[in-house]
Amino acid sequence: MSRIAYVNGQYRDLRDATVHIEDRGYQFSDGVYEVCEVRGGRIVDLPKHVARLQRSLGELRIDMPMSPQVLKIVIHETVRRNRVTYGIIYLQITRGVAHRDHAFPVNPVKPSIVITAKNLSYAKNQATAARGIGVITVPENRWPRVDIKSVALLPNVLAKQQAREQGAYEAWFVDHDGFVTEGASSNAWIITKEGAVVTRSAESGILAGVTRKVLLDVIASLQMKFEERPFTPQEAYGAAEAFVTASSQIVMPVVTIDGKSIGTGVPGPLALKLREQFHGFSAFS
Amino acid sequence: MSRIAYVNGQYRDLRDATVHIEDRGYQFSDGVYEVCEVRGGRIVDLPKHVARLQRSLGELRIDMPMSPQVLKIVIHETVRRNRVTYGIIYLQITRGVAHRDHAFPVNPVKPSIVITAKNLSYAKNQATAARGIGVITVPENRWPRVDIKSVALLPNVLAKQQAREQGAYEAWFVDHDGFVTEGASSNAWIITKEGAVVTRSAESGILAGVTRKVLLDVIASLQMKFEERPFTPQEAYGAAEAFVTASSQIVMPVVTIDGKSIGTGVPGPLALKLREQFHGFSAFS
Repeated sequence: MSRIAYVNGQYRDLRDATVHIEDRGYQFSDGVYEVCEVRGGRIVDLPKHVARLQRSLGELRIDMPMSPQVLKIVIHETVRRNRVTYGIIYLQITRGVAHRDHAFPVNPVKPSIVITAKNLSYAKNQATAARGIGVITVPENRWPRVDIKSVALLPNVLAKQQAREQGAYEAWFVDHDGFVTEGASSNAWIITKEGAVVTRSAESGILAGVTRKVLLDVIASLQMKFEERPFTPQEAYGAAEAFVTASSQIVMPVVTIDGKSIGTGVPGPLALKLREQFHGFSAFS
Repeated sequence: MSRIAYVNGQYRDLRDATVHIEDRGYQFSDGVYEVCEVRGGRIVDLPKHVARLQRSLGELRIDMPMSPQVLKIVIHETVRRNRVTYGIIYLQITRGVAHRDHAFPVNPVKPSIVITAKNLSYAKNQATAARGIGVITVPENRWPRVDIKSVALLPNVLAKQQAREQGAYEAWFVDHDGFVTEGASSNAWIITKEGAVVTRSAESGILAGVTRKVLLDVIASLQMKFEERPFTPQEAYGAAEAFVTASSQIVMPVVTIDGKSIGTGVPGPLALKLREQFHGFSAFS
């Protein structure tokens, strides 16, 4: 079965799914995106993703190309046409097509929208979680507006590539003050030897992760200790556990940081518990 | 006459010129670009642009999709098919099409290449130079790798839009130390009351502009005083003249910065002289 993509009003074979060369997403990275987990054919925490999408678009003054209600219908239809049971949907909205000029088009254009969906291997993802992943740290070099989930991801691309070349899976950015901000495509967490779950405030330096937000409910419900504060790589090296959160990975245990074993060197029990409990706190639609 | 675009090996009607939705330029701003001036149907300083393109690609480890020799032939053919006498060519190369994953594709893909050309109004451009443009200053918020001419231009888009909304044409970024780095799509220059032309070193904080580089030859040849050093907005407010350089604008006089008149409030004689002399020092091909 070939995959189907929704592109500007049409469901198209992925192989033929194209956008114009003067789409501002292509020439200026002038657009935003979302990734949602699909589980049992249903979409995890979709209202939170749509709310964040609307916020990102608002910050860039790009109009929603359709109402949230219609968007949800199209997302479900894209999942259905691709027969996705476990996997992800990817959604991208850009300012639209216009002759190249940095400033916004003087005559408003229709935003472009692309939605794709694909199956992932649940078994493979679970196996990765059972093994845990490696993380490296790299200097923060992104612009300050990382609160906008924009497609201007070149620094993230280079950080992820560096991680892979060093045998790791994710890169954590470390800011000028020596604190971890977040991963190239995830939020960063540690659990102290005292059992406190620690992650940075979403007020600055990071994207307000949807999975991060839901996990705060899980932590509260399990009555685990929680400290919302930045941490350094040095503190992370000495932590009992570490993990990352992202929609496509939920809670993914980290077993090495910069080549140093974290805790006992295997996925930590609290991280695995949070991973297990997560979907009891998410909304399915 | 409809415009023609060169896209991955084919000359296509601009209206039908598309790239795949999984082109990494679209999903990750994982690509670079160049803009060259066309004058009398010939391309200005093409070898310097190609050399810079190769450097940008090298920094991102993207292969040239064709040899520099073939690239030059395709650029000329694109100019010819669009009957451009005075105008610009735009060239964009991205890492290519691959299923979405931040790190570079594990199995190498062919880079994507797009080239467009268009006529501009010479009279209109000259009229703008005769009037001069307004500039605003904004805090530098781009990533440090601005030496790579990448399509990750969202901060530049927002700065240009802010300039337009404040009745100006260009925005100059001001770094953490209070110095102007460069414009959102140009290099920044002032001329002191003592007649010294001042611009920042290309060693850090700015793109090594091709027009900037050629202008250094013009300045040397005219035996004008030259100081390669950063300057503050405060120094610029009190300068005798100011101007920006870019391939599409050559030397464009600046008459206001943050709403303050520069010098006599009209384009300065030295800036206009540099503009006039410029093409005597550029290479046409």
